[in-house]
Amino acid sequence: MAKVINYPNKKKSVNKRTISHSNRGMNLEEDLSVTNQYYLDLNLAVVYKKPTPIQIVKVDYSKRNSAKITEAYFNVSSTTDYNGIYKGKYIDFEAKETQSLTSFPLSNIHAHQIKHLDYITKHGGFAFVIIRFVKLTEDYLVEATTLMKYLNETTRKSIPYQWIQENGYLIENKYQARLDYLKIVDQLIKESL
Amino acid sequence: MAKVINYPNKKKSVNKRTISHSNRGMNLEEDLSVTNQYYLDLNLAVVYKKPTPIQIVKVDYSKRNSAKITEAYFNVSSTTDYNGIYKGKYIDFEAKETQSLTSFPLSNIHAHQIKHLDYITKHGGFAFVIIRFVKLTEDYLVEATTLMKYLNETTRKSIPYQWIQENGYLIENKYQARLDYLKIVDQLIKESL
Repeated sequence: MAKVINYPNKKKSVNKRTISHSNRGMNLEEDLSVTNQYYLDLNLAVVYKKPTPIQIVKVDYSKRNSAKITEAYFNVSSTTDYNGIYKGKYIDFEAKETQSLTSFPLSNIHAHQIKHLDYITKHGGFAFVIIRFVKLTEDYLVEATTLMKYLNETTRKSIPYQWIQENGYLIENKYQARLDYLKIVDQLIKESL
Repeated sequence: MAKVINYPNKKKSVNKRTISHSNRGMNLEEDLSVTNQYYLDLNLAVVYKKPTPIQIVKVDYSKRNSAKITEAYFNVSSTTDYNGIYKGKYIDFEAKETQSLTSFPLSNIHAHQIKHLDYITKHGGFAFVIIRFVKLTEDYLVEATTLMKYLNETTRKSIPYQWIQENGYLIENKYQARLDYLKIVDQLIKESL
């Protein structure tokens, strides 16, 4: 079972696949992709990852059927990576992983992404961040409102693991809904009613 | 005033900028970009265009500070180009233009995009299509539900202009909200209550 391989129950055990250099930064995205496809198949939610923003400089149109981009650069995204609809509600989140055992470096999230999450909350959407501690094999959902409060009260450049443990919600890892974040969204929507 | 240049009041007058080959396909996107920025600045809505999906094949990392993509191809988008939040409601739409004076070719919208708009409607979101008749200098909003009914009843490969005129909503062109589509969304939300 893939789940067991990806998320051993023993904490601090080293997941070889997750920390191998070639796969670094891919697994959280892959797990969310599988999760979102599962939600879509079950007609639970429609959530997609936005494509990576790329600035195209040169395109070779000489082959009629397949334009080939020959020069392009990565752009900084204006928003977050994921958004969609769940139970009629707009949801929006950023997902990031860290190799650190003790804290989540804030440099991982751009200031304009925080601002975007804040806007979404103010417009009545449900905004959050998913943080993966790769070496702890733990994923947390932190609500944007909670994160905002923390950022307003601190000058630190990272969020301690303990704060995330206390203020975030540990996401259950299942076989198909590998990162079953909607379960937590459900709980939070219920609490807010 | 840009507005007057872009949308002359006389119908069927030819707008040189819009039909010039180099700008073709750019103006609707530009106008929506200005409109969405205006909505964001006024704190009315948070709507963004998704980046174009691109499949990256080769990246040159030799220059440390700017990875250069040297081979990439355009992918077909799984969803629509625009989504966001308005008055707490999830909105989702595709925007297309046609040079035709008499009909909108359905080949402009992919089957999976129609399916996506259908999903959004079923999940309680507000889904629609914006169609620009470039040579008529007219923009229409057509609700996804209305479009779906039409597609289920026809084998035609295009939608006649007259049908769009009768079943869609002409979008007002303003100076800043160049395509003031939220005005129509407002009206439709009101009617649905």
